[in-house]
Amino acid sequence: MSANASASAEALSAELPLEDAASLLSGADFASTKALPERGIRAVMMTDGSNGVAMNLPDWSGKIPATCFPTSSALASSWDPELVERVARAIGDEARAAGADVLLSPGMNLKRSPLGGRNFEYYSEDPLLTARLATAFVRGVQDAGVGACVKHFVANNQETDRMRVSAEVSERALRELYLAAFEAVVTEAKPWLVMASYNRVNGSYVSEDRRLLTGVLREEWGFDGVVVSDWGAVEDRVRAVSAGLDLEMPSTSGASDAQIVEAVRAGVLDESVVRRSAERIIALGERVVARADARPVDRERAAALAVEAARKAAVLVRNEHETLPLGGAARVGVIGALADEPRIQGAGSAGVNAPAAGSIVEALRPLVGTVDHAPGYLPDAVTTSDELLAEAVRVAAASDVAVVIVGLPETAESEGYDRTTMDLPEAQVRLISRVALAAPSTVVVVIAGGVVSLEPWRPYVDAILLAGLAGQGVSDALAGLLVGAVAPSGRLAETVPLALSDSPSYLSFPGEAGRSVYGEGVFVGYRGHDSAGSPVAYPFGHGLTYTTFEFDDADVTPDGSGWVASTTVRNTGTRAARAVVQVYVSPPESQVRRPVRTLAGFAAIELEPGASGSVSVRVDRRSIERWDEAAGQWVADGGTHVFAFGASSRDLRQSVAVEIDATEPDLPLTPHSTLVEWLDHPIAGAMLLDELRAADPTGATVGMLTNPTAVLMIGGLPIHRLAVDAGNALSEELLLRVSAAAAGSQDRPGTASTRPTS
Amino acid sequence: MSANASASAEALSAELPLEDAASLLSGADFASTKALPERGIRAVMMTDGSNGVAMNLPDWSGKIPATCFPTSSALASSWDPELVERVARAIGDEARAAGADVLLSPGMNLKRSPLGGRNFEYYSEDPLLTARLATAFVRGVQDAGVGACVKHFVANNQETDRMRVSAEVSERALRELYLAAFEAVVTEAKPWLVMASYNRVNGSYVSEDRRLLTGVLREEWGFDGVVVSDWGAVEDRVRAVSAGLDLEMPSTSGASDAQIVEAVRAGVLDESVVRRSAERIIALGERVVARADARPVDRERAAALAVEAARKAAVLVRNEHETLPLGGAARVGVIGALADEPRIQGAGSAGVNAPAAGSIVEALRPLVGTVDHAPGYLPDAVTTSDELLAEAVRVAAASDVAVVIVGLPETAESEGYDRTTMDLPEAQVRLISRVALAAPSTVVVVIAGGVVSLEPWRPYVDAILLAGLAGQGVSDALAGLLVGAVAPSGRLAETVPLALSDSPSYLSFPGEAGRSVYGEGVFVGYRGHDSAGSPVAYPFGHGLTYTTFEFDDADVTPDGSGWVASTTVRNTGTRAARAVVQVYVSPPESQVRRPVRTLAGFAAIELEPGASGSVSVRVDRRSIERWDEAAGQWVADGGTHVFAFGASSRDLRQSVAVEIDATEPDLPLTPHSTLVEWLDHPIAGAMLLDELRAADPTGATVGMLTNPTAVLMIGGLPIHRLAVDAGNALSEELLLRVSAAAAGSQDRPGTASTRPTS
Repeated sequence: MSANASASAEALSAELPLEDAASLLSGADFASTKALPERGIRAVMMTDGSNGVAMNLPDWSGKIPATCFPTSSALASSWDPELVERVARAIGDEARAAGADVLLSPGMNLKRSPLGGRNFEYYSEDPLLTARLATAFVRGVQDAGVGACVKHFVANNQETDRMRVSAEVSERALRELYLAAFEAVVTEAKPWLVMASYNRVNGSYVSEDRRLLTGVLREEWGFDGVVVSDWGAVEDRVRAVSAGLDLEMPSTSGASDAQIVEAVRAGVLDESVVRRSAERIIALGERVVARADARPVDRERAAALAVEAARKAAVLVRNEHETLPLGGAARVGVIGALADEPRIQGAGSAGVNAPAAGSIVEALRPLVGTVDHAPGYLPDAVTTSDELLAEAVRVAAASDVAVVIVGLPETAESEGYDRTTMDLPEAQVRLISRVALAAPSTVVVVIAGGVVSLEPWRPYVDAILLAGLAGQGVSDALAGLLVGAVAPSGRLAETVPLALSDSPSYLSFPGEAGRSVYGEGVFVGYRGHDSAGSPVAYPFGHGLTYTTFEFDDADVTPDGSGWVASTTVRNTGTRAARAVVQVYVSPPESQVRRPVRTLAGFAAIELEPGASGSVSVRVDRRSIERWDEAAGQWVADGGTHVFAFGASSRDLRQSVAVEIDATEPDLPLTPHSTLVEWLDHPIAGAMLLDELRAADPTGATVGMLTNPTAVLMIGGLPIHRLAVDAGNALSEELLLRVSAAAAGSQDRPGTASTRPTS
Repeated sequence: MSANASASAEALSAELPLEDAASLLSGADFASTKALPERGIRAVMMTDGSNGVAMNLPDWSGKIPATCFPTSSALASSWDPELVERVARAIGDEARAAGADVLLSPGMNLKRSPLGGRNFEYYSEDPLLTARLATAFVRGVQDAGVGACVKHFVANNQETDRMRVSAEVSERALRELYLAAFEAVVTEAKPWLVMASYNRVNGSYVSEDRRLLTGVLREEWGFDGVVVSDWGAVEDRVRAVSAGLDLEMPSTSGASDAQIVEAVRAGVLDESVVRRSAERIIALGERVVARADARPVDRERAAALAVEAARKAAVLVRNEHETLPLGGAARVGVIGALADEPRIQGAGSAGVNAPAAGSIVEALRPLVGTVDHAPGYLPDAVTTSDELLAEAVRVAAASDVAVVIVGLPETAESEGYDRTTMDLPEAQVRLISRVALAAPSTVVVVIAGGVVSLEPWRPYVDAILLAGLAGQGVSDALAGLLVGAVAPSGRLAETVPLALSDSPSYLSFPGEAGRSVYGEGVFVGYRGHDSAGSPVAYPFGHGLTYTTFEFDDADVTPDGSGWVASTTVRNTGTRAARAVVQVYVSPPESQVRRPVRTLAGFAAIELEPGASGSVSVRVDRRSIERWDEAAGQWVADGGTHVFAFGASSRDLRQSVAVEIDATEPDLPLTPHSTLVEWLDHPIAGAMLLDELRAADPTGATVGMLTNPTAVLMIGGLPIHRLAVDAGNALSEELLLRVSAAAAGSQDRPGTASTRPTS
């Protein structure tokens, strides 16, 4: 019996006729599981929705009205799990009130490329930030009595050919990045469901991958909920059931249920596997029944929360000469058609039927001296004309400050396809350039879910505010931020590169011929940029506000298997604001190439001007470990790890050196290990040479094997291939005997790692 | 019977006792095959040596004296197949005179990373340039009556873990790059042997890979010679024989011969495979017997050729203010310990026992006014001192021109390990900076086999001459080039990046955990740099001389299946020199990402001042094709291909647009093809919709499948998964029927390619 399953689910599943048990393993229709009312098994109703409830109307004529929060990409810029949890709870409440039992969210794939079509639905390029925010989201949703479904498990990092493409990715990159985020959420937040993605991983469909769906997810991480397919993801139903995919969605009109029954009857599918999946689906229904009543939905409160979230999502990346906040008496020229009708979310199955966001112009009008407005480009966001540009220049020239609202057109960001460029529409780039020349000072506000290029105009404007896709509260939020009613507090959850070609996955994304080769390995996002040391427009974690902070008194103390990293932050400016302290760890020299630094934790503190406060960040041991492929386990590299306290991955203010012992993985030598691996082994190396000296008293064999020049040339040869050259002294029997003896030795010294760099 | 085999080889192999046949399949010792004198089968003696004969003395106390030519990396900079052929013939003559039957050369792996430890033994990052030069080398060697052995087949592009590492590389990158170079040489120059490399490719050892050793090499390319293992590369002898590896080297003292016999007896190895390999090895011996007598070796002529080759290998990458050539009366300060004893070759099995190269200082002395000299750093090339630097600055300040000789230390470049940095030793960088500040003008000469970083001093010196590892003629050659007795004519065979991190393979080279993932795919070298559009220090193909050239009258005319690209080159300066016209082709839009341009051919012309001449470059159809993985064949993208005539990959002077019809690969649709692939198919798309309209007269099914929004979301779904949603109208039977009918249709229109971009 799984941890969540009641005895009744187990018993029920066991006593159902096989046909009934199998029938539970696929949907009744597009969104619900099947009910067996005579058995007391109820249907579970699912709805899409990551930044709000995206439930289809019964007649599919549209979706139900719902509060539209910032997309996950925007929310992530808050670096604020507490905010994410409140947003998720509000979404959960609306879902529950609408009759949904499960919200098919959060999407938590990593942003391997700035071009990912669905990046707006995901959090970050970093697995720790992703995990913290997705954990909060799951908790919020489930606190509302609605099941969360983390998705898309796993390595569904592109839309191109997503139904078939194979993510060709190393186990190390999977473990350290792509699986890591899911692992934290599954183990900490216990989502009711995990969604198996469309794609393949290293050749096999995730929906048919037993190692991933059962080995990793259930056996290693203890997941006890339901694994559901992405909609239409099941290629071979029988294989999928065997692998651990409980629920196929949507309905197959009974076709796949029959396949399951047939496979059991033919003896190619274990009946217990079917009953186990049925049990999990029954248990899901029981969870639904057992939950508390739905809370009443307070639309007004939700709308206020949407504004709050939009405020916290915006990232001020540039602010020369304190251009922002705008003076209360300023004459402001707001330029850009997106100011009239700002885009608030991405396209696709998770799109929300939202109330109108209102105009940024109107939101700003009461807060400053004068507001003039020129559209600058057509509502399609890609077309302009000499007239529109000339009008924009006139408005800009007459203003104290021009605020240019730019962003991607609706069609640029959607589920189903990837972007092909990081550029803003050319018309907008022309507009920015013309306005920047004409206006006394220029602020650019960018509305986009994915990262867009800020070149070549970035150095020529005074301030840049990245608004993301901020949901229905965008206009009020932006107005408040621009005039300083609130101070910006967002930090980049994704690097802004100078050029797409700087992106670590540039040469291999999105792949071809059915394969997407993750050639950058673990060097995704800032891990790649910072390790290459190449310039970026704005680094991961960067974000300005209307004050400045100083860090002091950095300290790192052991805490259980991990550490607590603490520092004191002081607000050295004149405005209250929120500081986000980011802790990055840099590893010592390793056998493998490791990123120069990785985010190990973060915490925030609100500080009044002049005030200071202490911030503590818990760092798990996992944050300093790497996945060792040969050993198949997490290991720590021994030596000095540097814990740095930063305001971004490239603005490190303080650091503390921490000495950490190496994990010594249990890696027995074999005849296929190289000569150097044998010689370097602390026990086996000496044992082997002793044995060889005994067998060949002339010393010739040992002489050859330890001659430095010879070792340089043949040291990489699997030792068994040297057997003949060494006069057969290196027999397989000898090698096996020595390696067994070495493995059994109790006095293996120290913690120093001894495998050579490869 | 293979093309080269005599009837006697076939007959002999057939009549040998199995044990004898098997015994021929491994070496007699370190360098020779086994003889069976009673059968008239002679031993074949092999020697290493890529830039000269590297034959070990019988007592292994050293190597025989031999002429030391520039390494392949340096020779490649000549872009001169005729020169390479003459050098190879000279090496072949010396090998023959020394009793060798086979020269284990040329090494022709591509330079995937600037760090490749053995890059000095290879030609280029480009497969066409590599192929042209290796073809010339094979012809030269074999013209001397010595068999050439092309190596290391294939994807042995690193030294790190070379005995075990798996090159994880797409079939497209293999075909377009790594195999392409071998293919051209095997089909055009017919080397007697091909050496199977140590490494694995996509998981399987090359020495055991039947597809590569037999399918590609013999069946596709028609190779009829002997496949020999790299020394010690055989992991499983029986599998290797089955795969097509004829000859294992070195001797295994009979152990592996016995394994072969045992496997045949046990029925796990086909006896005919063994006899076929024996036949090939016997035929190799017959080729040796059949060759003409060895030519007498003319050491003096070889030495002169070594100087000529060294001259042609040097690349002048920078020459501001016509700093070079040096004036005849100049006071020259030669700085750098490498001037006394320049490094002339790399380390490893191919190292030549060369005569002393002599001092660059002494070579220069008779040619200029005065030569002063300061070592600047110790002979180890990595250590300096305040005294050495001060002395160098004094010499520099007193000179008209300082010539700083720098380069990698001997230990930096060797078979057996890769470099870890592209940097020159820090002591040398300090020296250059100090000299550049002190001297009226500064020339830097770089002696290195691999590419080294020229940063950060590059902009602060007046001229840079890359000498490569130029062999025994280096000092005379450099002196002649510096004073202008000859004009430099070398062109870069490898990009000089600004930073190692700009290198396309940076994040994945050399891999870890037994795998090297070729994440950059086909974007190796300039293919990556130019496609990213990122700045480089000096582009592929770049090289200055003491005059200037203009191109005119570009033309491209069809010629058989390919084209002849021609242009007129005029020497617009005052010195005679050699122009290298490079033809690059840029493809049209394609279904896959293709490099922005690739080298399609080149030709050179020597021109007196004011003279002009026509240059014609044959461009094979293959140069405009790409490997289509789905179709498993070479295809042309239809549309405008731009043929550009350049002085480097980034200095394109003229271009001609050529319209080329697409190859339409025969790619039948299947139930696993996506909805979009079906709808876009010129025949099947319409047929399918007709059938569906007939089956469902309400039009609902067709309506759903062609609704633009629906297609956006579900267009990527393998069509069979839609069967149920489409009311089972899309039955597998229907799909198979339509695809068969479409494939059989005779009126498939046009040449436009119809598969969607993926």
